Amino acid sequence: MKKQPHLYAVVLAGGSGTRFWPMSRERFPKQLLKIIGEETLIQQTVRRVMSSVPVNHICVVTNHFQAESIKLQLAQWKDELADNFVLEPEGRNTAPAIGLAALRLLRRDPDATMLVLPADHIIQGDAKFKNAISLGYEIAQKGNLVTFGIQPTKPETGYGYIQPNRRARLGKQGTLSGYKVARFVEKPDVKKAQQYLKSGNYFWNSGIFLWRASTVLEEFARHQPALLRGLKAVDEMMESGQFGNPFAARYKKLPSVSIDYGIMEQSSHSAVVPVNFSWSDVGSWGSLEEVAPCDKRGNVKTGNVVDLDSENTVFFTDKRLVGSIGLKDMVVVDTPDATLVCPKSRSQDVKKLVEELKRRGAPEHLEHLTIHRPWGSYTILEEGPGYKVKRISVLPGGRLSLQMHHKRSEHWVVIAGTARVTCGDTVSDLGPGKSIAIPVETKHRLENPGNDPLEIIEVQNGPYLGEDDIVRYQDDYGRTQTP
Amino acid sequence: MKKQPHLYAVVLAGGSGTRFWPMSRERFPKQLLKIIGEETLIQQTVRRVMSSVPVNHICVVTNHFQAESIKLQLAQWKDELADNFVLEPEGRNTAPAIGLAALRLLRRDPDATMLVLPADHIIQGDAKFKNAISLGYEIAQKGNLVTFGIQPTKPETGYGYIQPNRRARLGKQGTLSGYKVARFVEKPDVKKAQQYLKSGNYFWNSGIFLWRASTVLEEFARHQPALLRGLKAVDEMMESGQFGNPFAARYKKLPSVSIDYGIMEQSSHSAVVPVNFSWSDVGSWGSLEEVAPCDKRGNVKTGNVVDLDSENTVFFTDKRLVGSIGLKDMVVVDTPDATLVCPKSRSQDVKKLVEELKRRGAPEHLEHLTIHRPWGSYTILEEGPGYKVKRISVLPGGRLSLQMHHKRSEHWVVIAGTARVTCGDTVSDLGPGKSIAIPVETKHRLENPGNDPLEIIEVQNGPYLGEDDIVRYQDDYGRTQTP
Repeated sequence: MKKQPHLYAVVLAGGSGTRFWPMSRERFPKQLLKIIGEETLIQQTVRRVMSSVPVNHICVVTNHFQAESIKLQLAQWKDELADNFVLEPEGRNTAPAIGLAALRLLRRDPDATMLVLPADHIIQGDAKFKNAISLGYEIAQKGNLVTFGIQPTKPETGYGYIQPNRRARLGKQGTLSGYKVARFVEKPDVKKAQQYLKSGNYFWNSGIFLWRASTVLEEFARHQPALLRGLKAVDEMMESGQFGNPFAARYKKLPSVSIDYGIMEQSSHSAVVPVNFSWSDVGSWGSLEEVAPCDKRGNVKTGNVVDLDSENTVFFTDKRLVGSIGLKDMVVVDTPDATLVCPKSRSQDVKKLVEELKRRGAPEHLEHLTIHRPWGSYTILEEGPGYKVKRISVLPGGRLSLQMHHKRSEHWVVIAGTARVTCGDTVSDLGPGKSIAIPVETKHRLENPGNDPLEIIEVQNGPYLGEDDIVRYQDDYGRTQTP
Repeated sequence: MKKQPHLYAVVLAGGSGTRFWPMSRERFPKQLLKIIGEETLIQQTVRRVMSSVPVNHICVVTNHFQAESIKLQLAQWKDELADNFVLEPEGRNTAPAIGLAALRLLRRDPDATMLVLPADHIIQGDAKFKNAISLGYEIAQKGNLVTFGIQPTKPETGYGYIQPNRRARLGKQGTLSGYKVARFVEKPDVKKAQQYLKSGNYFWNSGIFLWRASTVLEEFARHQPALLRGLKAVDEMMESGQFGNPFAARYKKLPSVSIDYGIMEQSSHSAVVPVNFSWSDVGSWGSLEEVAPCDKRGNVKTGNVVDLDSENTVFFTDKRLVGSIGLKDMVVVDTPDATLVCPKSRSQDVKKLVEELKRRGAPEHLEHLTIHRPWGSYTILEEGPGYKVKRISVLPGGRLSLQMHHKRSEHWVVIAGTARVTCGDTVSDLGPGKSIAIPVETKHRLENPGNDPLEIIEVQNGPYLGEDDIVRYQDDYGRTQTP
């Protein structure tokens, strides 16, 4: 398949991924994780669609909190993607996100055809994926809403199923065919799921779609007219550059509805292409064994684990040591500030645990100790009354904003690289083992003028140490307005 | 019972406690842990015997690695205990430790009577304990080697059992009687253990003993003559202040033998007092439920745990967050640098896990990130190539040695209290938010001249950051020889 000039990819990257806590956090959701391989899920997703779609045709729908992290992870394509981010003020389920993306694309290209796909799925078999897209594109051009159906491998009760109408074939390429949808089935019970598995004619709804923007918007007009009116208003506001509170308020009023329920199940133009690539939505820690390599006892093991005799257990850890003995069908996830232990059979309930953390105001539900920024990252090593200790890493050429704090002094000790430090009216370059004190209410800036990473230890002192005690005078990344 | 003028307590505090990893470490064994209550096990042990024995009659047998930590924990009695430490160069099982303590006590008091007890057991019922000691003392004066027998509550296969000869009563006080031992039984199989439990005439060997020093040494002469000769030589070396390598070499040659096997089971003077206090040797995480309070689902919970639905599970954690769901009969122990997860039924095998860690050279088997020193403590916040970050706490009036490092510079930032800092020829007092740089090969010292704790953050820089890169010029705690 040649790259189709009117094909665009819309990557849905607004998910919260609470079921991958503590590796995922509210502000660091699943698509940002390296689950398998050397790239994160969103990086893998973008790379996968690049074989069908030019990079500057890839759009990312996300929200403000995640946008910065996502842009960092996609920084290698930053020029091509620069204008392709659609930022929702808050998540309102899939239909509004997709409808808005369709309106945006239609302004760009009246023949725009959209491949919609979640950022946090794992797909293995890139050639097969590409072939499926090719057939889907053909069928979409005929005015259909194309879904991609996954051959079930077990009687899964957590997914919706799609039954094709085998007598209504809409297209064929090689061994792949596409059909009209006979019916959608919401998450079935075990007995039904077993029947579907046995019948061979029911497919998992992968949440991947392909359609012309104009087609899907016609269906919005037919089945979700109120939502479409709201989306058009939002689209107008975006077009005229209104991104403030009225925009957020308008968006908040949109009905929260899924594309499956709101459009696909209502439409008479729904189609399905049963595919042959391997797919997983890695919906929980328990599902990791489907996609990650296991040792001979069936354990998935990442990180610093010393284990005796465990079986069929998922260990997802980092540098901290986890010692384990005789675990069976368990999940153990370890991060610098939080550990999770549960049986695999309960891994769907991690979501409930995160709700409980949120209810208690536990900071561990929200962010990691390491926070990524456009200039690099920082890691909180310790916080206590009146002080905070961070390790700050600045990328070559990166620099933090020119800033000042009302309530805290800071001490910086360089541990690697060269720091160019502005403190008041003085600028100095400091190498490893050198230090400087930044008094309260003194303008300062940290910069890495070298070609190697810069690492410093920062010790903050003061009665208030919140990140919001910051006055920014100049910032390379346009952050002088908000903290 | 009045305090007996010739009664001494010998607290055996040399155990490694590997089965309580990761809370215990090779250099921070079980007796130093707060398992239940506000005091550590050794503090509770000392406080318990104080009702029967004057504090300056309490001796502690331990080794060099643990002595400093133990002295810190017993600091409130430091004057009374000052001369009462017996330091083994290495552990050689219980018989050498007890024999040596007997020789030392006999030099002090020819009528010395020794209550020997491990530092790391939990006993509940102090009055009952005191009554048992009183009867034991009476029986010991008649030339018997008294053991204290615990009424079994389950068919435990991990303990030795003692059968009293009910026809040979040696003494009686109130409801307590003591008897000659009919026989000792090594750890039985389950079937035997069930019989013993049912019979009501077998008692667990608590490892607590009472005898005249002269009596037990007569039994050493009879049953362990070679060991006794070795001990006498060691005792002579101690008396003449020889604590160097020859002393250690001599000690190392002593046979490693337990007091139970080496003396008690051989002697015709063994006696047993069945007691009615509650006792546990808390031999593993799984046994914690016997002594610690449980919630209504049977969980023992310490620390920052957010749990859904777990049952009969031991959570022993600290400040880090542990999230758990639906655990049954498990053990989860969390420390700043290491986490343990295992079923209760495997908690005896924590020992094997620690052996594996040791084999791999994992530092987590040896020490905690927080290390206690006579002047306070330090906590390693992070280590990386070329740097180390510590939080250092100095007690009021405490000061570190006057020292120098060949390979590293240090930066100190005060976060609480006042630091008196010697750096080269300069002495200065620094308050919170103040900092100082200590260059390589510069004499320096940190001191807390105030009445409040002093806390600083130390950032070390250099190619080698081992604790042994230290030259000590003066030290308040006599550590100018060894690091």
